[in-house]
Amino acid sequence: MTKTELPINIPLLDKGYVELQDFMGDDLSIVNAARVSFLGESKGDIKDKKLLNYLLRHAHTSPFEMVEFKLRVKCPLFVARQWMRHRVWSYNEVSRRYTSEELDFYIPETWRLQSTDNKQCSSGDAEQQMQAQFTQQMQQHVEQALDTYNKMIDAGIAREQARMVLPQNMYTTFVGKVDGHNLMHFMKLRMDEHAQYEIRVYADAIYEHFFKAVLPWSAEAFEKYVLKKA
Amino acid sequence: MTKTELPINIPLLDKGYVELQDFMGDDLSIVNAARVSFLGESKGDIKDKKLLNYLLRHAHTSPFEMVEFKLRVKCPLFVARQWMRHRVWSYNEVSRRYTSEELDFYIPETWRLQSTDNKQCSSGDAEQQMQAQFTQQMQQHVEQALDTYNKMIDAGIAREQARMVLPQNMYTTFVGKVDGHNLMHFMKLRMDEHAQYEIRVYADAIYEHFFKAVLPWSAEAFEKYVLKKA
Amino acid sequence: MTKTELPINIPLLDKGYVELQDFMGDDLSIVNAARVSFLGESKGDIKDKKLLNYLLRHAHTSPFEMVEFKLRVKCPLFVARQWMRHRVWSYNEVSRRYTSEELDFYIPETWRLQSTDNKQCSSGDAEQQMQAQFTQQMQQHVEQALDTYNKMIDAGIAREQARMVLPQNMYTTFVGKVDGHNLMHFMKLRMDEHAQYEIRVYADAIYEHFFKAVLPWSAEAFEKYVLKKA
Amino acid sequence: MTKTELPINIPLLDKGYVELQDFMGDDLSIVNAARVSFLGESKGDIKDKKLLNYLLRHAHTSPFEMVEFKLRVKCPLFVARQWMRHRVWSYNEVSRRYTSEELDFYIPETWRLQSTDNKQCSSGDAEQQMQAQFTQQMQQHVEQALDTYNKMIDAGIAREQARMVLPQNMYTTFVGKVDGHNLMHFMKLRMDEHAQYEIRVYADAIYEHFFKAVLPWSAEAFEKYVLKKA
Repeated sequence: MTKTELPINIPLLDKGYVELQDFMGDDLSIVNAARVSFLGESKGDIKDKKLLNYLLRHAHTSPFEMVEFKLRVKCPLFVARQWMRHRVWSYNEVSRRYTSEELDFYIPETWRLQSTDNKQCSSGDAEQQMQAQFTQQMQQHVEQALDTYNKMIDAGIAREQARMVLPQNMYTTFVGKVDGHNLMHFMKLRMDEHAQYEIRVYADAIYEHFFKAVLPWSAEAFEKYVLKKA
Repeated sequence: MTKTELPINIPLLDKGYVELQDFMGDDLSIVNAARVSFLGESKGDIKDKKLLNYLLRHAHTSPFEMVEFKLRVKCPLFVARQWMRHRVWSYNEVSRRYTSEELDFYIPETWRLQSTDNKQCSSGDAEQQMQAQFTQQMQQHVEQALDTYNKMIDAGIAREQARMVLPQNMYTTFVGKVDGHNLMHFMKLRMDEHAQYEIRVYADAIYEHFFKAVLPWSAEAFEKYVLKKA
Repeated sequence: MTKTELPINIPLLDKGYVELQDFMGDDLSIVNAARVSFLGESKGDIKDKKLLNYLLRHAHTSPFEMVEFKLRVKCPLFVARQWMRHRVWSYNEVSRRYTSEELDFYIPETWRLQSTDNKQCSSGDAEQQMQAQFTQQMQQHVEQALDTYNKMIDAGIAREQARMVLPQNMYTTFVGKVDGHNLMHFMKLRMDEHAQYEIRVYADAIYEHFFKAVLPWSAEAFEKYVLKKA
Repeated sequence: MTKTELPINIPLLDKGYVELQDFMGDDLSIVNAARVSFLGESKGDIKDKKLLNYLLRHAHTSPFEMVEFKLRVKCPLFVARQWMRHRVWSYNEVSRRYTSEELDFYIPETWRLQSTDNKQCSSGDAEQQMQAQFTQQMQQHVEQALDTYNKMIDAGIAREQARMVLPQNMYTTFVGKVDGHNLMHFMKLRMDEHAQYEIRVYADAIYEHFFKAVLPWSAEAFEKYVLKKA
């Protein structure tokens, strides 16, 4: 991938997106950082790729820190809350103390049922009739919340307090920057089948559209040694 | 302070608290860590205290990392969001993917007005009549949110989706652990007059009830060289 | 283990040691931190231990961050260099800009041969005659270095420059503090058979004497799921 | 600065260097990251520069994390030891377990005297005659060390043990990567007059040749609000 193609914006959910704004490095940067250990240099594609696979297979993760990805993300607040538990990222996020504009809310296309096996997961979809019913209720709820919010703002109530009425499907926007090693850790956890669908679509998009394009060899090794696909 | 007094729980806002669950170290641990630099030891209270002041005045912060505080916190979600931007803490938080129980919501005692000078702050209180009006609207809004939430849960909708309707004044609970240096950084930012009132009460309580009790010398130096009070 | 037994000092190599100075938490702190996720509490030893095993088996590592170990370490400089690549620890170390006293040097009991299979490892011991010869050369070399060093110090040369003549088997002393999760990561890498013998004895001692005593359940789970012993 | 000029290598001390291998971002990336707070965009050079100054004056440091610098460094071991106390950097360093080649040693141009005011500093130069004397002694010492080292290597002693004889003026090489905020912290501490001369030349070179070129506005603000030059 070349930088001239940037930014690349991938729309997700009903109103969200993930955007690659910038990156630093490529597969060769990883190989060269690893070769500093013995003061070596690139030895051609075949040996370089072999070394890169060796690194990931044996969890020699520090050379993968030499690559950086900078993303702009618009996602529901509950997704951002899971995301920001990853503490090695750098973040700058919209603050609802500063602005009351551009408020959007996530309305799921599909309501899922609570899993009975796994306390933290969903499992299968609700039946057709419930789908329509809860979508309508959600929309009404959001409208009521916005109505109360706007009344408060119009009456001069501080934004930092008025925001309290807004539900957790509110979209938020942030810039997030992370190195290759910590991005792989994020993807491993958030592409997992136990991750919530709404964050999984972000992790999947980052992997498919950005990680594979910037680090094709690392992506292959990641599937083999981290995701452990066949 | 001795560990036999623990835990110490300080109620905050209408239904929140901050609780000191455990700590490690004292002012002397900081002094002794600093003295490793020249293989020295404690030299008595007067010289030890003088050294501790010197450390903070010159931003030699690493010895303060040798002390730890472990807290349990119940606070509104928007407070937790500000809190967790502090990335050096360790956190374990209740997950609304796991449980739909013990839902509480923060209802402010006082509605504040938007500052016109400072975009991110509030300034003064709304008038009496508005106070009652917005408190009532907030309560109704929470009831509606809970009603919709419970209907979803009863219909078998996954907790991870149903939680989306809950407003951001929802209380959350977490265990947070941090070293003395990073706690001072948190307190400096969150005890500041520009910090939102609802997080300031937590920072103030941590300082007054826990930090001063565990690290009395450091507290004095903190006021002098970090808060820069007269 | 109770705190009244502290500090516990384990002599290592010819003049080094690792000392447990303080710790915070126990196996139950880990279990209770994990149970905050669903607002639960301890459920008795059998269920608690089962949960702790589950956590480590599934790499749910954040609750292990709630435990802290504070060590004082005296080790050769090249060991300290490997140690301090672990960046999540807090460190305070003797500075040879400050003091020219208490200089000790590591003289190996046994000289090992370079492995031919593994570029970074040793493999087997040198023969008897070489042992004596290199030990003697090492001792002479240290004496010469110290002699030059002392001449420089006596002539008023700055300590920060004079130290340059001291060889890398010089002992250094530091206080290091780390949480349970990151200590397990350190032990996994440094107890490994590919780790250099001189750091392995430190990692082994920390595990055998401190980790097992403070976190007996975690130690069992660590052997099973991290070290993967039979 | 454009990437086509990279790498830029600045020779330092007698055989060292610092090299800018790659970077990500510019002053505008910082401004734009900050403006995510209120969903704003660049407002032209004058306002952008003013905002950037505001950020640094008020220690709003997170937007500066959005910029990255990747360096290759060859420096004496005791300089690398000070450098790597900065724990937020990513590092890959030559390992003397792997290779016994390319051994270089720092011979100071000037021997400095121990400061009597400040325990950790040097102050003024030794007189002419001592200069020559200690330089000669240093050279002899290095030769002896190398001689012993090579004898050990030739006899098959493991590299990981043989390296112990090498003095601390040995050069080491590493790749180091850091964000703009943490680089400013490094520069503030290591460009300080109390920093050892041998690391100060590295910090100065990074500032003069790389930081100023990549982030000219930030450099101005850094001098004003962090270094507090007139």
